[in-house]
Amino acid sequence: MVPFDRVLIVGVGLIGGSWALALRRAGFAGPVLGFDEPSAEGAVRALCAVDDFAGRPPVAADAHDGDLVLVAAPVGAIVRLIGDLLPLLPEGVVVSDTGSTKRAICAAAATAGGAPFVGGHPMAGSERSGPGAARADLFDGAAYFLVGPPGEPRDRVAETARALGARPVVTDAAAHDRLVARASHLPQLVSTALAASLDGAGELPPRTPGLASMTRLAASPWAVWADILTTNRDEISAPLDRMLEALAELREALAAGDDEALRAVFERAGRFAGRGEDAGPR
Amino acid sequence: MVPFDRVLIVGVGLIGGSWALALRRAGFAGPVLGFDEPSAEGAVRALCAVDDFAGRPPVAADAHDGDLVLVAAPVGAIVRLIGDLLPLLPEGVVVSDTGSTKRAICAAAATAGGAPFVGGHPMAGSERSGPGAARADLFDGAAYFLVGPPGEPRDRVAETARALGARPVVTDAAAHDRLVARASHLPQLVSTALAASLDGAGELPPRTPGLASMTRLAASPWAVWADILTTNRDEISAPLDRMLEALAELREALAAGDDEALRAVFERAGRFAGRGEDAGPR
Repeated sequence: MVPFDRVLIVGVGLIGGSWALALRRAGFAGPVLGFDEPSAEGAVRALCAVDDFAGRPPVAADAHDGDLVLVAAPVGAIVRLIGDLLPLLPEGVVVSDTGSTKRAICAAAATAGGAPFVGGHPMAGSERSGPGAARADLFDGAAYFLVGPPGEPRDRVAETARALGARPVVTDAAAHDRLVARASHLPQLVSTALAASLDGAGELPPRTPGLASMTRLAASPWAVWADILTTNRDEISAPLDRMLEALAELREALAAGDDEALRAVFERAGRFAGRGEDAGPR
Repeated sequence: MVPFDRVLIVGVGLIGGSWALALRRAGFAGPVLGFDEPSAEGAVRALCAVDDFAGRPPVAADAHDGDLVLVAAPVGAIVRLIGDLLPLLPEGVVVSDTGSTKRAICAAAATAGGAPFVGGHPMAGSERSGPGAARADLFDGAAYFLVGPPGEPRDRVAETARALGARPVVTDAAAHDRLVARASHLPQLVSTALAASLDGAGELPPRTPGLASMTRLAASPWAVWADILTTNRDEISAPLDRMLEALAELREALAAGDDEALRAVFERAGRFAGRGEDAGPR
């Protein structure tokens, strides 16, 4: 099912670790080699899905014919790694990544040349991070965006994504970044702002299910978000403005006791929240 | 375990229906009588936790010594019902409610006089509504706020809340309303604003787990929220302002490419999101 013989995972955290686990669940029997900081070795080996581990970035000699090199790191690190790696890899190696934005990464790959690159982004994750948070079922049912020219490399990465339980969705880098600005980056900023506004503001409110679900994302690590915000700032700006407008609209209506205006916003919101499961990619 | 012999539930929706189911789970064997719109009868009887149903508001003759009358309706309906009911009930009947704000309701009870009233608010719920969404375990582990003078009625309602699986927390109406403004009303408005801002704004974003959790509350019915916002407008205003400030702070920092300012907001947010499970009532 997985059309590769040997997979190198560079960055074995939540996503890279889940890739390794999901590969094994899919019956992939070939070697999986992990690369990460030396300090990650224990946790990565504890996954029992990685055959060997190196506490350093991969070099050309690590790759062989028919390999897949998956770079699963924060966006900035992916940009640097593929710039270094792509020109050095032997023929037949396909490189993919799991970065949360795609324009900066695909541009770096185009500049680097060399091995074929297929940008990837599984729409799955967690506010937790590290190999200890990895799960074999993390990608089940999730959209898995793929950016790259038609051809065998993209087809093989799509087939692998399917084997991991995900649903491949081919797009281009600009459309991807516009969509995730609304699907992922805006919700993150809203959760972060909500939690920040509650921090230190008097007695802690009770952790109701509603508050818990609204502040869950706020626990996401800044190290990951720094690169995402830097590389997608232009696309986040308009959705963030619309969110600020909607919230200000609620504030004005509330202050004026304008039930009709409040109801109108609740109805727009209910229409979005109640849309069918089949609407658009998930 | 439940120190009442006969329970009248006025309003058998999500909360009233879950009360009935949780009473049965707790081994309560006395009669449970449901009152609601005639159209609700089928769904209420399908719960198999209500012995009889009346498609009308209860009257004094429905209550007998040792009874508990629980009013589980939107805040405005509770205010009207307890104003009508309290002066008419026979001695020995305790009245409680499950309204989401407590000042307006407790003031109406004080004005009405008559039967002893214990304000209640289980910090549990769902964006779904109606008896079909009721669950026997809805209150498990949840804080259950109680507002009323010390004494037997409050103690008996607290014991009942404990039997339902909840954790009774005695407070006063003003402190309650201030706390829920931040724990419940602010998260609701933020979810509503986020979903409203995404509605109709181009291609539907994929329904990622993060987006789903951030817009889940936005499906909550306006009919419930109209009364909550009307009766707690003053307490919601300041937390809503702080949220707007935090979001505007993120927008400015993003526009300026000011990573240090962004990081500072993420750190405040992470502190709140990562606070211990034991901090404050849940």
